[in-house]
Amino acid sequence: MKLNGYYQKLPGSYLFSTIGNKVKAFQDENPEVELIRLGIGDVTLPIAPAIIKALHEAVDEMGNGSTFHGYAPDLGYSFLRETIAQEDYQKRNCPIEADEIFISDGAKSDCGNIQELFATDAKIAVCDPVYPVYVDSNVMAGRAGEYDPVSGTWSNVIYLPCVRENNFIPELPKERPDLIYLCNPNNPTGTTLTKEQLKVWVDYAKAKEAVILYDAAYEAYITDPDVPHSIYEVDGARSCAVEFRSFSKNAGFTGVRLGFTVIPKEITSKEGSLHDMWARRHGTKYNGAPYIQQKAGLAVYSEEGRREVGEQVSYYMRNARAIYEGLTEAGYEAVGGINSPYVWLHTGTLTSWEFFDQLLTKAYVVGTPGSGFGPSGEHYFRLTGFGTYENTVRAVERMKRLKRL
Amino acid sequence: MKLNGYYQKLPGSYLFSTIGNKVKAFQDENPEVELIRLGIGDVTLPIAPAIIKALHEAVDEMGNGSTFHGYAPDLGYSFLRETIAQEDYQKRNCPIEADEIFISDGAKSDCGNIQELFATDAKIAVCDPVYPVYVDSNVMAGRAGEYDPVSGTWSNVIYLPCVRENNFIPELPKERPDLIYLCNPNNPTGTTLTKEQLKVWVDYAKAKEAVILYDAAYEAYITDPDVPHSIYEVDGARSCAVEFRSFSKNAGFTGVRLGFTVIPKEITSKEGSLHDMWARRHGTKYNGAPYIQQKAGLAVYSEEGRREVGEQVSYYMRNARAIYEGLTEAGYEAVGGINSPYVWLHTGTLTSWEFFDQLLTKAYVVGTPGSGFGPSGEHYFRLTGFGTYENTVRAVERMKRLKRL
Repeated sequence: MKLNGYYQKLPGSYLFSTIGNKVKAFQDENPEVELIRLGIGDVTLPIAPAIIKALHEAVDEMGNGSTFHGYAPDLGYSFLRETIAQEDYQKRNCPIEADEIFISDGAKSDCGNIQELFATDAKIAVCDPVYPVYVDSNVMAGRAGEYDPVSGTWSNVIYLPCVRENNFIPELPKERPDLIYLCNPNNPTGTTLTKEQLKVWVDYAKAKEAVILYDAAYEAYITDPDVPHSIYEVDGARSCAVEFRSFSKNAGFTGVRLGFTVIPKEITSKEGSLHDMWARRHGTKYNGAPYIQQKAGLAVYSEEGRREVGEQVSYYMRNARAIYEGLTEAGYEAVGGINSPYVWLHTGTLTSWEFFDQLLTKAYVVGTPGSGFGPSGEHYFRLTGFGTYENTVRAVERMKRLKRL
Repeated sequence: MKLNGYYQKLPGSYLFSTIGNKVKAFQDENPEVELIRLGIGDVTLPIAPAIIKALHEAVDEMGNGSTFHGYAPDLGYSFLRETIAQEDYQKRNCPIEADEIFISDGAKSDCGNIQELFATDAKIAVCDPVYPVYVDSNVMAGRAGEYDPVSGTWSNVIYLPCVRENNFIPELPKERPDLIYLCNPNNPTGTTLTKEQLKVWVDYAKAKEAVILYDAAYEAYITDPDVPHSIYEVDGARSCAVEFRSFSKNAGFTGVRLGFTVIPKEITSKEGSLHDMWARRHGTKYNGAPYIQQKAGLAVYSEEGRREVGEQVSYYMRNARAIYEGLTEAGYEAVGGINSPYVWLHTGTLTSWEFFDQLLTKAYVVGTPGSGFGPSGEHYFRLTGFGTYENTVRAVERMKRLKRL
């Protein structure tokens, strides 16, 4: 069998599988312990009433011969693409049209698949630490080079450290990348680039003819007015930036599955147009997002939907703030929690996994080791605001006690 | 920009987009004409009541804090994987376990993505004509070589003609392929391989250490007892065959989106296990099929669900039989329609696209040109049984009149 040998280069298993296995082993040995999970970025509040109503209505349509929907348009229903263009972009003065929006089953698929549009020898740059899908999907495609288990780096990947020493702001790389992944607000650090800081990257990408792959999955959590909700708020981004968006974190769709990617028509070269290539990929390897889910997505933009999901975001942000404030007060060094549901702790002298084990076995709190997000995540740790408020407060109390031990 | 240059090698656009554009142009010019669409393989009956009930129940669960479901397990919920293993496999004496079943958003995605697990220099063999996704997804990955617009073939693809001269039964290739795509019942010809004929391919694959990528999306339409519903009915298939299955055609899920792929653990080489690689791909580039859809899939296997979807399949099969019998009677040469919703006509002296135009502009019937499915599809044409019975009968009458002109 001629297998894709690059898969075998991936070290270990996907971060969250490893955490799941460790937690299961501990829980099996300690069944009486009540763990609090602030690890994986999964939401916990149920889907909002306005969206549930839309889902029921769409299901009824599917059960009626005169309103049944078969194959959806590959790129998404117009009703949703137009609403997104208007509400998320044109109302923010971002010049994005409906036919530049591609509906999908979620930002993870899109972030993982987008690299297919580029040559195998395209060089990628990633913030470090960052969401692991960017690097892993490029490893699978043979674009990452060789893994060095000592440094935890890939030979052909340009790392942009985001650490306390640079206030978590990535610096322009010395070597020119073809693709630059930026996540803003960043997962896992919870830190942000302001519009001015993002402009530096847009200008750089244009000057170097690089493409920015901009993940805005957490834009609903932005509270600072100088942090942009979309990269298209920055002049010039239309010709160099792709944007990924998700319904998972603003509307609780982690189990519903819906997202979209924006590819302006201006990102072209002699070889072709990124927009047309992505359309072709959708037509060839995808059969469209379900009608039911797209109607649910539409309901997110209704007056009621907007209010209800806004309340959910506020709930999670209250949790994130409680974590940030509680731990800071207890003497932990932390960032995030202001424009993001994530709080990023420094683990001091402990490694990320040592801290994970300590937190699991002594405070009964599950978090995510920072080193799982890249080498510069070592000695950091991620906690999320996606639990219940009660559990979040209890987890913070437990961590305060741990600090006093 | 360093783009993936292989995308530019794909000729024209995806088959069904071209058809859609032609139909739209004709309809715009002739708004009074009532077209009957028997082209794209999309279902028309609404989702069955037992499934609608399950969808509503799942939506209610998503709206309740105590029954809400966030991220699904990457590979699918156990309730569905276990039911499939039991009902579709173990009850047919196919030795397939639940953890060899990977739930997804549909067979098209899986058929398109599976090639990623293989080396870029893996050589593929495809039946000709066949579902275009197999070849196109390999073209995009750089595995197909150069396109010859005269012959309509790719230099690095092994074609297995399925034409009237060989009773639509592919012959073993002279050159060894690494990957063999088989669709049974075949789309578009509607013809089948019996268990005995399929055994030849399993034995060949094992002897040559090739992998069979077996698309069984139309298995629900099989009526002949000697045609297998799964490749695992054939001894030895566990070590050489991957199977794709869909809920689209047996339960009308074209707009609901649900499918699955079976990868037995025995398909291994020194380099790794195909099963583990696909699991890794799911974990890295996919976030699981929606809970709502997986509950709907489960309802397909309930007593009521089974009866209701069985009636839908019978309805479409009555259409297919009406097309096959009506056109045969009128002097068309046709196959299919017995184990498949598809009828495959010979277009005589006309090319496939000439016949398409004639049928569109003179009989007001939309079908699919056979040449769109591969070079050996030239001078053939596909009609589907997925319309309403009334429209199907009218379309056949129109085609009979056309034949008499």
